This record gives sequence, C-alpha cells and structure tokens, in this order.
Amino acid sequence: MNIKLVLKLVGRVLLMEAAALAVPLAVALLYRESPAPFLLSIAIVAVFGLALSALPAKQQFFTREGFVAVGLIWIFTGVVGALPFLFSGYFASPVDCIFESCSGFTTTGATILTEIEPLPKGVLFWRAFTHWLGGMGVLVLATAIVPKLGIRSHYLTQAETPGPVFSKLVPKQSQTSKILYAMYCALTGLEVVCLKLAGMPLYDSFIHSFSTAGTGGFSNRNASVGAYDSVAIDIIITVFMLLFSINFAAYFLILTKKWREALQSDELRFFLAVVFGATAVLTVANLGVYTGFWESLRYTVFQVASIISTTGFGTTDFVLWPQFSQMIIVLLMFCGACAGSTGGGMKCSRVLLLFRAIRRELHRITHPRSVEVVKLDGKLVSESTLHTLLVFLGAYVMMVFAAALIISLDGCSFTVSFSAALTCVSNVGPGLEMIGPTGNFAAFSPLAKGVMSLCMIIGRLEIFPILVLFSPSTWQRI
Amino acid sequence: MNIKLVLKLVGRVLLMEAAALAVPLAVALLYRESPAPFLLSIAIVAVFGLALSALPAKQQFFTREGFVAVGLIWIFTGVVGALPFLFSGYFASPVDCIFESCSGFTTTGATILTEIEPLPKGVLFWRAFTHWLGGMGVLVLATAIVPKLGIRSHYLTQAETPGPVFSKLVPKQSQTSKILYAMYCALTGLEVVCLKLAGMPLYDSFIHSFSTAGTGGFSNRNASVGAYDSVAIDIIITVFMLLFSINFAAYFLILTKKWREALQSDELRFFLAVVFGATAVLTVANLGVYTGFWESLRYTVFQVASIISTTGFGTTDFVLWPQFSQMIIVLLMFCGACAGSTGGGMKCSRVLLLFRAIRRELHRITHPRSVEVVKLDGKLVSESTLHTLLVFLGAYVMMVFAAALIISLDGCSFTVSFSAALTCVSNVGPGLEMIGPTGNFAAFSPLAKGVMSLCMIIGRLEIFPILVLFSPSTWQRI
Repeated sequence: MNIKLVLKLVGRVLLMEAAALAVPLAVALLYRESPAPFLLSIAIVAVFGLALSALPAKQQFFTREGFVAVGLIWIFTGVVGALPFLFSGYFASPVDCIFESCSGFTTTGATILTEIEPLPKGVLFWRAFTHWLGGMGVLVLATAIVPKLGIRSHYLTQAETPGPVFSKLVPKQSQTSKILYAMYCALTGLEVVCLKLAGMPLYDSFIHSFSTAGTGGFSNRNASVGAYDSVAIDIIITVFMLLFSINFAAYFLILTKKWREALQSDELRFFLAVVFGATAVLTVANLGVYTGFWESLRYTVFQVASIISTTGFGTTDFVLWPQFSQMIIVLLMFCGACAGSTGGGMKCSRVLLLFRAIRRELHRITHPRSVEVVKLDGKLVSESTLHTLLVFLGAYVMMVFAAALIISLDGCSFTVSFSAALTCVSNVGPGLEMIGPTGNFAAFSPLAKGVMSLCMIIGRLEIFPILVLFSPSTWQRI
Repeated sequence: MNIKLVLKLVGRVLLMEAAALAVPLAVALLYRESPAPFLLSIAIVAVFGLALSALPAKQQFFTREGFVAVGLIWIFTGVVGALPFLFSGYFASPVDCIFESCSGFTTTGATILTEIEPLPKGVLFWRAFTHWLGGMGVLVLATAIVPKLGIRSHYLTQAETPGPVFSKLVPKQSQTSKILYAMYCALTGLEVVCLKLAGMPLYDSFIHSFSTAGTGGFSNRNASVGAYDSVAIDIIITVFMLLFSINFAAYFLILTKKWREALQSDELRFFLAVVFGATAVLTVANLGVYTGFWESLRYTVFQVASIISTTGFGTTDFVLWPQFSQMIIVLLMFCGACAGSTGGGMKCSRVLLLFRAIRRELHRITHPRSVEVVKLDGKLVSESTLHTLLVFLGAYVMMVFAAALIISLDGCSFTVSFSAALTCVSNVGPGLEMIGPTGNFAAFSPLAKGVMSLCMIIGRLEIFPILVLFSPSTWQRI
C-alpha cells in the first residue's frame, strides 16, 4: 500500500476544496456577512492540504491505492467541509457539522437543522454548493482540472462513479471528466435560468439548482420547495430532478447525435417505467389526502421524482400519505436513480439485472439443458459483473440493517431506525415518521449521527471503497 | 409439462393427508369430542385424492415437473388441511382456516386465533400435528412410506428440502427419507418424555413437541410456553428448538460415529456463534426489563432460540424489549436456522456464504492478480452454486418487500407490514408491535391473510418452486 501517494492525493483534493471555499466566501462578502468562517476554514484546509501534498512519494498506484484514496478523500472532504459550519456558530456540536457536511457532499440532503432560514446566506450557499461538488464527484473534478495527478486516474474515478459498469465517454479520463463537468455546468445553469424566470429569487435559484444537480435536497427554506407554492417551480424542479437521474453518457450520445443509442438504454426505459408506474399508482392511492386528481398528481409526481432521484426535496409531507404509499416510497429509496447519474440508491440497472438474474434462474430450472445469458442493452453481461452486482446488493441490504441496528440504540422505533439507515445509505434525505420531509435528524445521539455520516459516504461510494479501507487484507504486505 | 403426472402425485399426497387426519380423529374420540370435522374432512380429501390418483399419466418426470409438483402439493396440502378447522366452527372465515393451516404446514406458527384454549383438543392436536408433518416435509414423508412413486423422487425432495446444497445421506432417496423420519420421530419422542417428566401434561407435551420438532410455534395455551412458568420446561424446549435447527445430516454422522465430521461444519459453528453472541448481547440489553441478570438470561436465551430456529414460542413479550433488542430479533428472523433442518429463514449457511463472497470481493479489489475461491467446510463452493445463492438472497429480500407492500394496503404501520411479511416468509410466527408474541393476525384483511399464507409457502419451499409455478416459461411447450 503506497500510503504516502494516497495522502499526497488527499492533500491535492483538500487544496481544491480550499479553492472551492472561495465561492461561498465571495457570496458572504456580497451579502455583507462575516467572512470569518470561510477565511478560517480556507486557511486550515490549505495548510493541511499543502502539508500532505508535499509528501514525497513513489508513483506506484493500482486499484487498491485507488479505492483507499477515494475512501480517505471522501472522509477527509466530509470532515473539513464541516469547518465553515463549525465556525459559523449556528450548529450545536462538531458532530452536527460533520453530519451536515457529509450529507452535503454525498448529496443526501438530510439535515440536523431545525430552523434553516436564520442562517447566513454564505453558509447556506456552501451547504448547497457541497451538493453540487459531490454530485458529479470531487475526483472527477480533480481529474478534470488538475492537469497531471501523476497516476492513471481511472483507478480513482472508477471507484467514485456509481453503477455496475464503468464507461468512459472518450478514451482519456481527464477528457471524460471535462466533458462530464461541462454538461453538468450547462444543465445546472439552465435550471438557474428556468427557476429565475419562474419567479424564484436568484440566490434561491442557485441554491435549488445546486441541490437538484447533485440530487441532494438542501434548500434555504424551512418548507423546502413547498415554500414557493408555485406550479411552475414544481414542474421545473421535477423535470430537472429526473434529468439529473439519467446516465450522463446519454447526454453525450445526444450531443454527438447518437439519438437512437441514447434512447435504447434498458436502464432508462426501466427508470421511466418506474417513474410513470409509481406516479400513476400513488396519484390514485393519495386521492384521499388531496382535493381531487390534479392536486394529487401535482404533489405525487414531484415526490416520486424527488425520491427516486434521491434528491429529497419536499412540497408535501409524505408521512401523511397512506401506509401503502409510504411503502412505495421506501421501495423507491432502495431503487434509486440510473447509474452514471448524480443520484443514489442501488441504481435502476442493478435492480433490473437482479430481475433478469431471477428470471434466468427460473428458466434454468425449467429448461436445464438450455444456456441463457443475461443481457443489458442487447449486450451480454459477464458472469463476473453479475456476480459483483449480486454481492453488492447483498452488501447493500446488510449495510442498511447494520446501520439500523446501531441507530436503534437511540431507542427510536423500527420504522425510524430502518428508514434513517436506508435514506442515508441511499443518499435520499428524508425518512419516515419523525425524520419525514418536515422533520430533521437533530434528535439523534452523536453515535447515531456519526454512523449515519459514514453510511452516507458508504452509499455515495457504493460500499466497496469504504469496506476496502477497513478490510485487514488491504493493509497486508504482499 | 406433464401436468397429469403432477396431479396424480398431488392425489397421492392428499391420500396420505387423509390418512394423517386419522390421528386427530383418534384424539377427538379419546377426549369424547365430536369426530364430525375430521370424518367430513377425511371423506372429502380421500375422494379428491382418489380422483386425482386415478389419472392416467406418462412417466416423464424432470426437474420442471418436480418443482411444479412440489409447489402444487404444498398449496393443496395447505388448503385441504384447513377443512377440519372450517368444520369445527371455531374459525371466523374460510380464509382464516387456510391461513392457520398454511401457518401449520409451513411451520410458521402465526395464528389468527385470539383465544386458543376454548378449542377442542382434537382440533388443537391437528393444528400442532401439521407442524410436525410440514417440518420434515410432506414429500420426504411420501418418498419414505410410499414404496414406489414411479419417478426419480430426488426431483421432489430436492425442491422441498431447505438449503443451498442438497445432500443425500445414503444413495437411495427413499432410504434417506426413512432415516430422516426415524431420527425425527426419535427426537420428537425424546422431547415428549422430557416434557412429561418436567411436569407438563401428556397432551400438552405432544403438542409442544410437535411444534418444537417442526420449529412451528403453535401452542395449546394462550400464553404459549410462558403459561407453564417452569424453568425446567423452558430449558428443555430451548435445547430442543436448537437441536431441531441443526442440519439432520449431523445426527446421521453422529449415528455413524463420524463425530469429527459432524462437529466440523462451518454452518453449525456460525449458528452457535450467532446464538451465543445474540444471547450475550440481548441479556445485557434487556437487563432493564427484568429483575436481574439470571431472569434476563432465562427469557433471552429462550427467545433467541425460538426466533433463530424460527419456532416462535414465547415465554415473554419481546415487543416490550428495547428497540435495539427488537432490531436484533428482526436480524435473527432473516438469518434463520441451518440448512437441512426443519427451521426457516435464509439459513445460516447462506448468510455465511454471503459474508465470504463479500470478503472475496474486497480481496479481489486489493489483490487483483490473486485467485481466491469461496469454501464451505473446507470444500470449494462452485461459482454456479454461489450465483444461485446470491440470486436467492436477492429474491428473498424482494419477496419480503413485495409482500409488505400488499399488506400495507391494510393501513398498518411500516413496522407491522414489514415484520408480518418477514415473519411469514421466514416461517417464524410472531412479528413486531400488534403481531408480537402476545398478539395475533386476526385483524388483517382477507387479501393480506391470503398473501401471507402464500408467503409462508414461498418461504417454506425457498421461493423458487412457487415462482416456477407462476412463471410463464414453465408452461411453454419445448
């Protein structure tokens, strides 16, 4: 394990984070707020980052180093991202700050704040900006803007990019990263414009666009998107939540005029089928809660998009929906968005492949002499990819229950423990009962908050990087 | 699909069930109760069984026919087993009778009865006897006592016997079945004697021994085993619940003096580790509920054995335990007993193999050039066995949530829907909140009860036979 090079990389990313902190600093100065929290944070992060970057290291870098680096970078990023919150004085404890920062970078959007609106604009801007940085990935960003990390960078981005199959848009990783961020910026900018035109203040438009782009869910309003009570805003955010849930490779295909390829994705079709199916069923199931079909449709479609994209914005409180509807919300949390998007969860392609693997298993029983393969987009899925995917799903469910077990030490109900664990691992944000859309995570113990913060990172990195970090075999000498 | 031969087999098993009904008939006569419910049932089942057995059929019989036969046989067995309940007049509706019968044969032990003690002794005897018949398997029994079914019977018993790997004790299946039932009878008889010596009435000893042997959980007392409030009885039943959770192959190895092989089982060690670990943690966690360490140990160890063996007997109400303890109960429900036992759940060997598959995955990431295999009991587990196992675990979790979704239509809380689905698929019996050890399943709608009955069969047959039954590809012509 080339730990020095790994730490050097951590240092580089911290320097980048120090630079990113200049953005909320500018916002704070613009609104004549105290720049102290940001100046202090930048100083600490920069010094720390410089010290680590200066480490002398050999250039040996393989998959193992890549996974450990990604795990450590995300943990460090989450921790130092908490500094502006800490120095702002608006948070109750350092654990709360780390929770909020991890929730931001991992694009979960769960908050320990009971009141959001009293916070300074600079701090709230940083809170939403972490969503935007974490959504596409801090390492994708690093490979895009740092000219030469001195390593084969696909070892890094591979571990950070969600989905069962890692696809590069163009042969060179740094080029792929640049294209991804260009599309990401363009879509985010488009949403800012749309929201401004729909009547949202410019500052709020930025906050909500960052949150949507990263499929995070932090708002600067206590009532989330519901505060604006505007059909136009609801529609714009619904559309963008869905757009950011789709594999970015699709946009690249569209840009390069490969329309047919872009639309022929099995995952995209599955995703859209789930969105339409869930919206149809829930609109009917929720009729009793709203005054008529159209109101039910309006709130339901927003919530379906918000949960399956793992954003977690709210315009209504789904904890008041029938139990059946809440169970569908839980299933959507498990499922999550498409691979290669900024969304969380297990990812649609994995759920789809599980269905196909089960179907093949049944076919094998009834037709033992036939050989059937599992396909995605018409292409064969190798048995080893399928194996890794199934192990991933097993590990995913296990993580959720392990986290729920520790959270249950707080004495909260099974529903709260389970939905808290699930919403954190899937990077959604709200859970059921007291942690629903109008609730928050303030009441949990520091232990539970710590575990949930780790769960968010575990979920964002799709489990294995963090398990590798804590696995003894990683640290064995070969 | 040779449906005629399949139905012929169903007929044979129904005739066997008619014969089995003679036992509770004798009990009813002994206690001078009305024999009518049993006489009527025997008549109907016998006529139905004779008609099906008389079907002319070709002898073609393969895996596909085996799976369909097992699925149909269990559904038919569950339905006609409900007849004595229906004719007794003590049950509110036919759906309730089917629920109780399925719960019996699948050894779940969930009940829709609010009061158990007023029922006639014959009916309660049948209720517990279904546990005993279902525990080792109705088809294992069929192959043991029916001299020649005219088919390669391992296609049948394979689909009915739980666990990832099917092992025959001796080359001939009918011989294996005979040995299994001989050991089963001997252990059951031993428990009857022990319970009688500990002061339990003889009738009650039979009831509780049948329930323990099948790891079912039906009692003839409202307060379950807690009604006797005897430390000796608690200890005896705890020991036997654990004994019936162990792979019966171990007893065969012990009988043939292969002690070392019997004790070297990875699954057995894992099972015992979970039992001891859970007992230790829960005894401490529950200290606040009981007056001191020993009382906590007494009730905890009984409940751990009851849940992991998927029996479901109660001496205490675990719904009153801390939430952390209840979460452990949920995890034990998932885990279940050893493969090749009468217990339910995912089975310890599968959970163990999932852990090992995850460990290998991490090892592959950190040591990409090394080749590591997954082993059980020192023997290589083939990739295809591992694949089937992982697909099974995925299907298992999916089944639980699918069932929970339908149950949630009743409007019960997430905790109730989820734990009801889990306890049925895992064949445990009690769930959380209103369906805890002192509760019952009476309040559910007919739809929920029907789904739960099917879930119990799905869980008992380890999912695939029932999925095969409902899969279109099964019914395709080749």
